[in-house]
Amino acid sequence: MVQIRQDTKAAVVNQREDKKILLAHGGGGRLTSNLISSLILPRFDNEVLGKLTDSAAIELSSSSVLFTTDSFVVKPLFFKGGDIGKLSVCGTVNDLAVAGAKPVALSLSLIIEEGFETALLERILDSAANTAAEAGVRIVTGDTKVVEKGSADGIFINTAGIGTRVAGAELSFDKITPGDCIIINGTIGDHGMAIMSKREGIEFELSIESDCACLADLTCKILESTPGVRFMRDPTRGGVAAVLNEIAEGRRCDIEINEKPVPVNPAVKAAADMLGFDLLDIANEGKVLIVASQDSAEAVLNICRNHPLGRQGQVIGRVAETAAEAPIVEMITAIGGKRIVRTPYGRDLPRIC
Amino acid sequence: MVQIRQDTKAAVVNQREDKKILLAHGGGGRLTSNLISSLILPRFDNEVLGKLTDSAAIELSSSSVLFTTDSFVVKPLFFKGGDIGKLSVCGTVNDLAVAGAKPVALSLSLIIEEGFETALLERILDSAANTAAEAGVRIVTGDTKVVEKGSADGIFINTAGIGTRVAGAELSFDKITPGDCIIINGTIGDHGMAIMSKREGIEFELSIESDCACLADLTCKILESTPGVRFMRDPTRGGVAAVLNEIAEGRRCDIEINEKPVPVNPAVKAAADMLGFDLLDIANEGKVLIVASQDSAEAVLNICRNHPLGRQGQVIGRVAETAAEAPIVEMITAIGGKRIVRTPYGRDLPRIC
Repeated sequence: MVQIRQDTKAAVVNQREDKKILLAHGGGGRLTSNLISSLILPRFDNEVLGKLTDSAAIELSSSSVLFTTDSFVVKPLFFKGGDIGKLSVCGTVNDLAVAGAKPVALSLSLIIEEGFETALLERILDSAANTAAEAGVRIVTGDTKVVEKGSADGIFINTAGIGTRVAGAELSFDKITPGDCIIINGTIGDHGMAIMSKREGIEFELSIESDCACLADLTCKILESTPGVRFMRDPTRGGVAAVLNEIAEGRRCDIEINEKPVPVNPAVKAAADMLGFDLLDIANEGKVLIVASQDSAEAVLNICRNHPLGRQGQVIGRVAETAAEAPIVEMITAIGGKRIVRTPYGRDLPRIC
Repeated sequence: MVQIRQDTKAAVVNQREDKKILLAHGGGGRLTSNLISSLILPRFDNEVLGKLTDSAAIELSSSSVLFTTDSFVVKPLFFKGGDIGKLSVCGTVNDLAVAGAKPVALSLSLIIEEGFETALLERILDSAANTAAEAGVRIVTGDTKVVEKGSADGIFINTAGIGTRVAGAELSFDKITPGDCIIINGTIGDHGMAIMSKREGIEFELSIESDCACLADLTCKILESTPGVRFMRDPTRGGVAAVLNEIAEGRRCDIEINEKPVPVNPAVKAAADMLGFDLLDIANEGKVLIVASQDSAEAVLNICRNHPLGRQGQVIGRVAETAAEAPIVEMITAIGGKRIVRTPYGRDLPRIC
């Protein structure tokens, strides 16, 4: 009986189902199958995903696995230098990369607001697929849910990822030693300011592009050829300030940063100054902070500078013994002053990733 | 400068930050750290999650891995027999279980609407933690995002999971052979009708409870002791009807189901009749459809009936050669008639999981 009711309505619905995402696309029935077979599978075609099993079967080269997840709620969905699809692949690839892994496989899970334009979904899926292909990781499993209009904001994406550990890469706070150098692979604040400038509709003379990129190729090259890497982390939400404070607290050490060598795009700096943001607090999506022994810092920097994602790499600071009760992160400013760098509170930049 | 502005506002915010989730809880700064250290870590305490690295390091017993993901958008968040926290653990555990895996580790990623009550979040996290502990899986990595009021509906949860393959468990459509039996471990439709009855505010004389449960203990016992299992799948969204049609299409075989032995709770049947739903289309969250050789069906059924999650297990049908162009799923009704069971369209039951 229900079957009949559905089928008579189906004809009416069919006329709309190509252009907009309907609640029924998330219902687990025929329309979900259509969505998966017409929009999703052709983009992520690989033999594992194509099997559409409840779980993807993967043979890893090692049983030493790294596993991570991130949900992406960035607003706006499209911005200069990227979109939520690219971001959701880069973010999880980077979490694996900085933990010392070679990323192997990702999951991709969509929560879509009813009425979302199919054409936008296709752009986002294309972007995710291209980014994954470039990074050499496969999207092997996924899920699609649809919620009523007004119950989500366009689309949210979750990715989880698994990777295998790069041989010898045992990165942790504990490995960090006073005297170690802190290296960054390029300019800071680009992603956060690209989002903010688009979100606020503020036009700047120089356009600002997100640095959104998959770092695994760079980090694997560094780890494979440089034994002195102690720790890496990508300064996303909370920016460089949050990561440096995590390191200081995690290792119980002081950190001294020099403002002068910190690479900054002039347009990003202008935008941050205008809006009253501290660039150290701003999210990056293609940057990695690398703590390396003094001996190996130059080698790390050389690998960076010979890689498309590290041309502007710099040593920006160093680790010191802490004398205080609570470790501190201190910055020597461009004019020779000193200021404490604190973990940002988190209020200023919602939905940056 | 920004630092100062944040700090003076912090005192005001602090008074509210215990009771409601604020945007800043998702900003990646101090408030995010507080949320993680006060609400999340104590509940999921294990040495892997506790390290708060970008990725969780896990040593698996095998490099043959199964990997899955699901997002949960169920409405209402709390229902008889479960809540979104329990569901998000069971759903992913079950996707691993029916693929022939022993679940090892889960990720847990939250998208929370600004203003969501902290007390509710705590109940949900407790529930997820207890369910994971009972199922013997660890939650090893996670993420928290907060979106503005009106940009999500309370809370959405994504879990991804990895497991190792149970020795010898190579389940696939291809293994299915005409003559194989189709077994279910208990009553159908309980989860979907529990959600619908709560959502619609409809009171039934007999109360309906979701069957939400982790199936891995049962499926592992079956796989470890019965070589004749060909395929398993949990009939969630789209219900038994969707899974049987997936099998018929995936293997290109007919399936014949007997209505009589299909276990149904009388209250669930009454509710479905009243609301005009076909129980075969309704989601389950603690059920597994097992395709097993005729020889092993009795052994599978015995294991079910000796397990708390399979006491009402039944052989409900069998696989047959298909004579038609398109394989069909047919049901012999309780009064001896026949009807085609089709994949539901998906429109009727949004946000069931």
